[in-house]
Amino acid sequence: MTGFVSFIGSGPGDPELLTLKAVDRMQKADAVLFDDLSSGPILTHARDDADLVGVGKRAGRPSPKQDHVSRLLVEYAQTGQHVVRLKSGDGGLFGRLEEELVALQAAGIKYEIIPGIPSAVAAAATAGIPLTRRLTARRVQFVTGHDASGKLPADLNLPALADAGATTVVFMGKRTFPLLVEALSAHGLPLDTPALMAESVSTPEQSLHRSTIGELSDKLRTEIGTAPALILYGPLAEFGDV
Amino acid sequence: MTGFVSFIGSGPGDPELLTLKAVDRMQKADAVLFDDLSSGPILTHARDDADLVGVGKRAGRPSPKQDHVSRLLVEYAQTGQHVVRLKSGDGGLFGRLEEELVALQAAGIKYEIIPGIPSAVAAAATAGIPLTRRLTARRVQFVTGHDASGKLPADLNLPALADAGATTVVFMGKRTFPLLVEALSAHGLPLDTPALMAESVSTPEQSLHRSTIGELSDKLRTEIGTAPALILYGPLAEFGDV
Repeated sequence: MTGFVSFIGSGPGDPELLTLKAVDRMQKADAVLFDDLSSGPILTHARDDADLVGVGKRAGRPSPKQDHVSRLLVEYAQTGQHVVRLKSGDGGLFGRLEEELVALQAAGIKYEIIPGIPSAVAAAATAGIPLTRRLTARRVQFVTGHDASGKLPADLNLPALADAGATTVVFMGKRTFPLLVEALSAHGLPLDTPALMAESVSTPEQSLHRSTIGELSDKLRTEIGTAPALILYGPLAEFGDV
Repeated sequence: MTGFVSFIGSGPGDPELLTLKAVDRMQKADAVLFDDLSSGPILTHARDDADLVGVGKRAGRPSPKQDHVSRLLVEYAQTGQHVVRLKSGDGGLFGRLEEELVALQAAGIKYEIIPGIPSAVAAAATAGIPLTRRLTARRVQFVTGHDASGKLPADLNLPALADAGATTVVFMGKRTFPLLVEALSAHGLPLDTPALMAESVSTPEQSLHRSTIGELSDKLRTEIGTAPALILYGPLAEFGDV
């Protein structure tokens, strides 16, 4: 007897940013495995008798190992249940989706993937920033600011990230941003490039901080905090202020 | 008397991929201005007495000029109505959102921006492809394949796009893909790099075509068709096949 897994991107946190399809699957699920950032009001869509299982991973806190999460997911599905695996934002973007898919494939368990609103897209919308602009900002890139050990990844494509004509969003990059900015500056990106730091996007704790990459780097050298954050930089980062 | 505009990303086409917030705003709107790709079943959420106004823009077809769309949007809002401006995918990604925001700002009209599921994110989910993979694919980039005249943009950052460690999605790039692949190949990207072409994502006409950038380029030299398409390439493009 094998179950079925619905991977669901739960969006950035605001339960109103769930899709209709996500709500439908949550209402049908026997068990919901969720991350820290896809908890709270989002879970109210689950059935009263559904198993709600937190498998939270969050920067800076001890958390279950990925292997353990994948194994738990397989075990739940193998009981024949319809399992929802909630991942904040879109699961395919820095959500370690691939590792869980491989585990299910190895176990012969079927699944579907339901996309979610990426947190980077929600952050831009909230701040009133279009991610692209005709003629002048035609490339958007998303990158993670830390590797497995929490350091700035050694193999970043710095020329690509230092492109003054692109909009760049750094996920999970508060701690390493000062180092990144040093490298970007060495590759020619001006320190007065507009930047936006968006913390706890689309939650009651949301905070938006407009700056430049140079000033933001200085700020983050001394003051990091624990809120999950995205850093958006590029020519469009100063747009908006609705 | 000034109205209010809700910019809504309507997602890739499947009405189940609308967010709860998008549905709420559509139910409240006095007028809905929509693009070709955000029409059909999505519009069933609008009130029966709402004005539904198609301002469709679609590659390869004559369509209203952007100036005209922006002016129409301002005029509707200036009658004091709550206007929904539906844009397929996420409005901030290649949706010319910035031009409409500037027009509203100039006219002193307030607005909100509600993010949507980007078509690139939906295409990857449908095909079972994670956009990132820990350690080996840590950068994702979205780029448009044509400029204002329909040609391959002259100022593309080709080294960034030829990065074999990134996942790249080209929007509106079927016609120019053979030229792009020539340039990517000249910058060192192997012609056997996995590629996925996704047409009419999340609609009944959806078609997924797995290939390599070299083979897909050959195919598109002789056969383009009119369906809207995304082309995804990079190491993860061969993943999945659910």
